[in-house]
Amino acid sequence: SKTFRIAVLPGDGIGKEVMPEGLKVLQKAVDKFGLKLQFEHHEWASCDYYAKHGDMMPVDWKERLAGSDALLFGAVGWPDTVPDHVSLWGSLLKFRREFDQYINLRPVRLFDGVPCPLANRKAGDIDFFVVRENTEGEYTSLGGTMFPGTDREIVIQESVFSRIGTDRVLKYAFELASQRARKHLTIATKSNGIAISMPYWDSRAAEMAKKYPDITTDKQHIDILSARFVLQPGRFDVVVASNLFGDILSDLGPACTGTIGLAPSGNLNPDRQFPSLFEPVHGSAPDIYGKGIANPIAMIWSAALMLDFLGRGLSGDEQQPYLQAHDTILKAIETVLAQGPRTPDLGGNSNTVALGDAVAQLV
Amino acid sequence: SKTFRIAVLPGDGIGKEVMPEGLKVLQKAVDKFGLKLQFEHHEWASCDYYAKHGDMMPVDWKERLAGSDALLFGAVGWPDTVPDHVSLWGSLLKFRREFDQYINLRPVRLFDGVPCPLANRKAGDIDFFVVRENTEGEYTSLGGTMFPGTDREIVIQESVFSRIGTDRVLKYAFELASQRARKHLTIATKSNGIAISMPYWDSRAAEMAKKYPDITTDKQHIDILSARFVLQPGRFDVVVASNLFGDILSDLGPACTGTIGLAPSGNLNPDRQFPSLFEPVHGSAPDIYGKGIANPIAMIWSAALMLDFLGRGLSGDEQQPYLQAHDTILKAIETVLAQGPRTPDLGGNSNTVALGDAVAQLV
Ligand SMILES: CC(C)[C@H](C(=O)O)[C@@H](O)C(=O)O
Ligand SMILES: CC(C)[C@H](C(=O)O)[C@@H](O)C(=O)O
Repeated sequence: SKTFRIAVLPGDGIGKEVMPEGLKVLQKAVDKFGLKLQFEHHEWASCDYYAKHGDMMPVDWKERLAGSDALLFGAVGWPDTVPDHVSLWGSLLKFRREFDQYINLRPVRLFDGVPCPLANRKAGDIDFFVVRENTEGEYTSLGGTMFPGTDREIVIQESVFSRIGTDRVLKYAFELASQRARKHLTIATKSNGIAISMPYWDSRAAEMAKKYPDITTDKQHIDILSARFVLQPGRFDVVVASNLFGDILSDLGPACTGTIGLAPSGNLNPDRQFPSLFEPVHGSAPDIYGKGIANPIAMIWSAALMLDFLGRGLSGDEQQPYLQAHDTILKAIETVLAQGPRTPDLGGNSNTVALGDAVAQLV
Repeated sequence: SKTFRIAVLPGDGIGKEVMPEGLKVLQKAVDKFGLKLQFEHHEWASCDYYAKHGDMMPVDWKERLAGSDALLFGAVGWPDTVPDHVSLWGSLLKFRREFDQYINLRPVRLFDGVPCPLANRKAGDIDFFVVRENTEGEYTSLGGTMFPGTDREIVIQESVFSRIGTDRVLKYAFELASQRARKHLTIATKSNGIAISMPYWDSRAAEMAKKYPDITTDKQHIDILSARFVLQPGRFDVVVASNLFGDILSDLGPACTGTIGLAPSGNLNPDRQFPSLFEPVHGSAPDIYGKGIANPIAMIWSAALMLDFLGRGLSGDEQQPYLQAHDTILKAIETVLAQGPRTPDLGGNSNTVALGDAVAQLV
């Protein structure tokens, strides 16, 4: 049976502190469920590497990683030494595009033990996924400037929506919704203001919906949709959005559950032609790096998402241990969040290693 | 002294129900403060008009309105009979562009008596303005489709950021911040993903900031900025944003204070070459139209914003009555929100007219 090759890239800042805890929990899952994982460690895709080599990654990064089944990523960015756009476009955004990780998947869940910024919500009330297009749309460097440096200066920025790119993210979202109990898909749009790309997005969504008659859908403009994340978060099941709108919603959703620091993400190539990437959303957090107090839950949850994704690429009997490992880790996370120990971000005085130990113990 | 000409356009749905209450309160303010307002009523810019004439407005709408100092607008839209993009681009969005209302101004405030969806916040904790660019940016119908109808289909959407358009909204926001106690401006961006227009926006903001050394600024990417509206709303004073980002933030802000149904807006031409437009944010609300239970506060507040804006166009002594009228109406709104009566949206069983009477009484 298949052994999965996992490239481990801790990156910068607290990425280096939380990664060992993610690996600790994975090792427990390997032992318990008989998973087959083989790890390869890399110190590049980091600003430390940039400082030495003038680039975020070795020139042959793609060959080095292409044989991996997944990339487990810590965090990237160290603005004091490398500007963010250099570190991001030189690593994370390169992976997304060159490995065609066209889905950015982010679960949004409310947990017991995590203070919720919304009033009167309890665990179970909020439980949905944001499915974000991850390779095209509003994120481009196409366009330019007319009359530069003058009062008549005009800057044009282009967004690109391909049929391939649009259809495949919609399809993924409909498929995900069809696996869930409520079978409901919310489609983010802004076709009442953005008059070319968004009506196109709407029309492709309407077309795709015909193939999924058992899924209910509703189309919401991004302004009121953002408002409803705050006002009626319980109504969402799966939300699909363009690159920009998905970026916004997948920060806003975790903010509404108080879990920005706990949120994991998967950057998926569902066709499995290229490795997918799993990373905590929180970033490198220069302000707390070095103290050993970073909360490793997002890293551990990202590792669990990875197991789930890897498992779903196997058939029948073989996939079960991976899905079980995911569910077991998630249960362990729930228990630790509810009962402690807690790192300072959640009001405790425990540390990164103790949290990793506690989750690993429960697995 | 100057008599202001106000064009009154109730529009559709509950716009027709709340407008009389706005006018009732204005009349009280006129009597009390000796304001000089002259009203002209129009039934067009409505879907009713469209049903009869096949267009949202008479062909000479611009001439008919150009002599007005302000437009007091109710709501537009009746999706059962006219598609939203037709009613919007045929009225509201036309006003914004053709009357060069380049600022969309929305106050965000938490009131006593209005249930806040955020936990543990009280009146006074949240009090800021969103300043939105209102004529260009992401809202365009420029672009097109390559290989239409095929698998290779690619849709390009263009955004347009002119130096004139960018600088004037930034300037307005800096000026507004300089009139406020905290003198802080937050600049919404997404220059780490949208690689042409947003770095340009950032650079113009940095340039403008040099002229306002007493204003502190912080630049935030729209994803984390949206999250902070939920997590730390108290930190904001003035927030400036492009058309799209401002659209999102100015729905999200009121959502965070529970005031989506109460929020007013000003579509301003600060140069006063064209009339500015004041309207409640809530829309025509077909679901409750005809019952007489719509909450008129957003309409009344919009009318108050109008008085403030008109007053600021006068000099010295003449402007005082207008600013006082604004403050008095706002105090009356605060009192009614805290003490009732309340319409059903706020848990009461009072009606539109009774609310208007209550506010008018207090003025
Ligand atoms: C109706 C729509 C076109 C409009 C906008 O996006 O500008 C509305 O949301 C608003 O904010 O006034
Ligand atoms: C850092 C930034 C470019 C990135 C994005 O916008 O995609 C981040 O916000 C994310 O969501 O992963």
